[in-house]
Amino acid sequence: MLQYAMLHLFGYEVSLDDLKSFRVGDSGLDSWKFSRLTLLQTVDSICPGHPEAHDTPGVEVTTGPLGQGFGNTVGLAIAQKHSEAVFNKPGFDLFTNYTYCFFGDGCMMEGIASEAASMAGHLQLGNIIAIYDDNHITIDGDINCAFTEDVLMRMEAYGWHTQWVKDGDHDLQGIEDAIRKAQEVTDKPSVIKLTTTIGFGSKLQGTHGVHGNPLKADDIKQVKKKFGFDPEKTFVVPQEVYDMYHKHAAEGAAAEQEWNKMFEKYGKEHKDLSADLTRRLSGKLPEGWVEKLPTYTSKDPAIASRKLSEAVLEAIHDVLPELMSGSADLTGSNNTIWQGAVDFQPPSTKLGTYAGRYMRYGVREHAMAAAMNGMAAYGTVLPAGGTFLNFVSYAAGAVRLSALSHQRVIYIATHDSIGLGEDGPTHQPIETLAHFRALPNMMVWRPADGNECSAAYYMAITSMQTPSIIALTRQNLPQLEGSTIKKAIKGGYVALEDKEAQITLVSTGSEVSICLEACKYLRDKHNVKARVASLPCFEVFDAQEKEYRLEVIPDGVPSMSVEVMSTMGWEKYSHEQFGLNRFGASGAYKDVYNKFEFNPEGISKRAMLTIDFYKDVKPLRSPINRAFQQMI
Amino acid sequence: MLQYAMLHLFGYEVSLDDLKSFRVGDSGLDSWKFSRLTLLQTVDSICPGHPEAHDTPGVEVTTGPLGQGFGNTVGLAIAQKHSEAVFNKPGFDLFTNYTYCFFGDGCMMEGIASEAASMAGHLQLGNIIAIYDDNHITIDGDINCAFTEDVLMRMEAYGWHTQWVKDGDHDLQGIEDAIRKAQEVTDKPSVIKLTTTIGFGSKLQGTHGVHGNPLKADDIKQVKKKFGFDPEKTFVVPQEVYDMYHKHAAEGAAAEQEWNKMFEKYGKEHKDLSADLTRRLSGKLPEGWVEKLPTYTSKDPAIASRKLSEAVLEAIHDVLPELMSGSADLTGSNNTIWQGAVDFQPPSTKLGTYAGRYMRYGVREHAMAAAMNGMAAYGTVLPAGGTFLNFVSYAAGAVRLSALSHQRVIYIATHDSIGLGEDGPTHQPIETLAHFRALPNMMVWRPADGNECSAAYYMAITSMQTPSIIALTRQNLPQLEGSTIKKAIKGGYVALEDKEAQITLVSTGSEVSICLEACKYLRDKHNVKARVASLPCFEVFDAQEKEYRLEVIPDGVPSMSVEVMSTMGWEKYSHEQFGLNRFGASGAYKDVYNKFEFNPEGISKRAMLTIDFYKDVKPLRSPINRAFQQMI
Repeated sequence: MLQYAMLHLFGYEVSLDDLKSFRVGDSGLDSWKFSRLTLLQTVDSICPGHPEAHDTPGVEVTTGPLGQGFGNTVGLAIAQKHSEAVFNKPGFDLFTNYTYCFFGDGCMMEGIASEAASMAGHLQLGNIIAIYDDNHITIDGDINCAFTEDVLMRMEAYGWHTQWVKDGDHDLQGIEDAIRKAQEVTDKPSVIKLTTTIGFGSKLQGTHGVHGNPLKADDIKQVKKKFGFDPEKTFVVPQEVYDMYHKHAAEGAAAEQEWNKMFEKYGKEHKDLSADLTRRLSGKLPEGWVEKLPTYTSKDPAIASRKLSEAVLEAIHDVLPELMSGSADLTGSNNTIWQGAVDFQPPSTKLGTYAGRYMRYGVREHAMAAAMNGMAAYGTVLPAGGTFLNFVSYAAGAVRLSALSHQRVIYIATHDSIGLGEDGPTHQPIETLAHFRALPNMMVWRPADGNECSAAYYMAITSMQTPSIIALTRQNLPQLEGSTIKKAIKGGYVALEDKEAQITLVSTGSEVSICLEACKYLRDKHNVKARVASLPCFEVFDAQEKEYRLEVIPDGVPSMSVEVMSTMGWEKYSHEQFGLNRFGASGAYKDVYNKFEFNPEGISKRAMLTIDFYKDVKPLRSPINRAFQQMI
Repeated sequence: MLQYAMLHLFGYEVSLDDLKSFRVGDSGLDSWKFSRLTLLQTVDSICPGHPEAHDTPGVEVTTGPLGQGFGNTVGLAIAQKHSEAVFNKPGFDLFTNYTYCFFGDGCMMEGIASEAASMAGHLQLGNIIAIYDDNHITIDGDINCAFTEDVLMRMEAYGWHTQWVKDGDHDLQGIEDAIRKAQEVTDKPSVIKLTTTIGFGSKLQGTHGVHGNPLKADDIKQVKKKFGFDPEKTFVVPQEVYDMYHKHAAEGAAAEQEWNKMFEKYGKEHKDLSADLTRRLSGKLPEGWVEKLPTYTSKDPAIASRKLSEAVLEAIHDVLPELMSGSADLTGSNNTIWQGAVDFQPPSTKLGTYAGRYMRYGVREHAMAAAMNGMAAYGTVLPAGGTFLNFVSYAAGAVRLSALSHQRVIYIATHDSIGLGEDGPTHQPIETLAHFRALPNMMVWRPADGNECSAAYYMAITSMQTPSIIALTRQNLPQLEGSTIKKAIKGGYVALEDKEAQITLVSTGSEVSICLEACKYLRDKHNVKARVASLPCFEVFDAQEKEYRLEVIPDGVPSMSVEVMSTMGWEKYSHEQFGLNRFGASGAYKDVYNKFEFNPEGISKRAMLTIDFYKDVKPLRSPINRAFQQMI
């Protein structure tokens, strides 16, 4: 509510009526009744229950779930430091902003805040000013019941500069002084502990009762009276308040004008940098970058798709200067670094510079994802970060917000199946693809070869409003005969056609080439003709015209999916499913695949059963044909 | 490897041959080739790549993914403190164990470790002795590149007792002294920072090269020589080493005998407690507990399923003393507490006692889940913990291990859909049920009314090897006419039968009653007969006989699923799916449901399209009929 009210006061397009639509009648079980009585609609209000980027003018990141805003802060600050190092020149302080963060006990309890704070301390992000609302209350009541640590000592341990304003309810000068002091500290992120009273002024001040519930009518009145407002009036802003805020807004607008003038001059003295920055901010990609994407023929050697991903980064990093890669401490395994990449590091570490484009996120998957959301939101960088596919789940909270808040973030997710081998079931994804395929506005790619890998990156980079997870193998994959970037960017295509096919095998990633082998096996051993559809990305395939999708998975032919993990979701694209609805096993890759019969023989056996099972069904419709459209 | 080797030395059933099967030839891309050459199988070895409870004798928790072991430690220590408080009596120190934990920089970077450490500090778990292997190396190399915080200061801030042994490579006396000192500190968890050299003795010591790769042959030889072993021999344990370890093992066995004697005596003096403990340790449930489960008739009032869950806890907590409930700071919203429940708290807080059975986990979903895994593994308690369904995703890493390591953990997941209303899309699950339904060995329950809620708890409590997520509504649900506990424990049943039905509506939770309304609508407006199947748990329904499942979702009738979230996975139980493959909206519950047409009219419209679409298909098979069995 504070965020919406401030936006209103500063003149953003958030009206008093918009403010009125915030959580109307949200008072528990009978909220529906209340809402009907007031005749106000909250659905599709631009003031949703938690602020969301894109929904409300001026809201830049989506921070509802606890700790996410803290992580976003670190990402915004990284992007600022990087942009400053790349673009600022003597006389041209283009990037100078601080990132302010408000957080509470709840944020601090969340692990993601620990990861993000440790990262910010290591990176010496002096452009962060975080204000800790130390109000001693969470939803369960006084924090004494669960949270008795020394927050400032902990922040100091992470390498933060710490201050404490003991009377945050009244000491406005102390708050201002602390903020000014924090602005001066440039080699450390700053935290200001502000000891406050929750619901200050309310009859229920200092209690959990003012966290989520609206104040009672009489309480509202006495609060207004206490602070010098007319208790009888609601949704009124005194003109002098508007005047003061609008004056500040005008100062901001004037500063923006100054900046624009400076940037115009910058354009003359630093033409290339200026053009680059203008392009980045407009969301355009440089000309010619697409031609850099590697392409392959079936004569090229078999190679692990994590290495194919590395080849893409190697090929495009020069032409795409906004690309910042990184890994959650798995650089050598995720293959996320290019030759000669410079670390994004504080210069004092002598390990890199702030102009560096390679992030050492540490073993901090959740904060990496939230930081990447902040980096993407800043507007000047395109973040890509790696971990094992199984551990993208550690980051699920922030990955969800990449999708909800339309951030172009790329998750490089290697070791994508039981094919990772010896690390075993604790590291082998089973449910992970189903999880993220079910997430709206998320592209989950699982390329089968080099061309598909390039296609995945093409789509990930050109989709300005959609994040991507690119699932990649540890083991080698042959280059397919039928693949091209052009085909693969449709999310699904025919990898092997046979107009007389008795079955369509639908597959992704490492299993596509095994399906192609299975086709030979079926022909040789069973005299059966089969075709193969490769479906590297459901989300993108779903967006194609129905006619095209029916070419890939046609009517009249039974289809079977093949993927070495949960079959969940595959019924949408196949009549029968061959997958792994159990945990994997530790062992050499081939042994594990054979144990679960993911080989030509195991696929063929099930294909034969599928053909037999559907031979009497008339008409045999493709699963692409549906009775009605899904709501998306 | 250390864990397996120690188990071997202490005489657990881990043989030298088992040790030989650990990660055979795991040296990167050519591991398969290597494995073939050595002719050794690692698949199904009892020494998997990361230790797993149940796979290896003596391995009690599954700790592969970083930070999980730290969280398990806190849970094991909670269970110890609680068991001590409940069962120890003068002269009968039944529960006295410490929990030892080894962790590294990687663990400490993970947010889950922060949550768990803060929780342990608050709870004053003096029975924890954690040893921090400060070897300065993670996979990306020297920790200077990502991790430069002051770990001991941070642990102190969490309320831990800290010590530092500076030469962990040689100072054995220092290590022993530190551990003895830590044992004496009873009001704080202890951490001992042990500064060590990774791969001590190897030519590659102090580098990342010894983290995941086997030593080279010549390096192995020189290491053996250096420490006084015969460099030519492999997999040999000198007899004096066996003798020393077996002597220790014998002392342990003697102590166990002592304990057994003490417990026999305890049985005479504290008959009830002894019987209770014996029962708990044997995995049996008390007689008569099932009868306590609430039952309902359709005349009972509509009530939110989170309140129905509360009623279950209220009814059974007395008869099930091993039940420890709790919440991640959402007690009032999750309805996880019973009347008069005492907090599990250090007595000095005056907020509870260690005998208390209500956990204030704080806003620490991931550590809550990992702690619950540890609590369940201890064997004397049955943990249940609450958060919003959407934030079970924050705990995904540990929830996965509940399933993989067969821990009986109950996740009470309220606010389970867009029906939560005003909190909006950031809090409304869309992908969450698909995610956890795709997780093997996880029961995901979404009860439609009181009887189904009792059934969910019945199954959750009686399934000793399987965790459960119980998804519960914020909004009120009517009591169904056709539901009973007996029906619902099958995971799916017919909620409304009509032998002449033209469509089966398959649904869960809050949508079941709307489907029943839709049946009336279909009859009145379209003269169409419909039947309803309630499917509160896929995992359990799948385990029923096929004949029964075909009664619920029969051949010859088109079926349509109705659930207000991702349709992913529903194709397995229905021909068509009505769901929400997009994010939700902030607003009053009814308004949001109407916006997305989850009302009798919206359901009926799609039901009519489904009936029409399938009218020409012969034979129209139930989706229960499959061409082949899934591998589970």
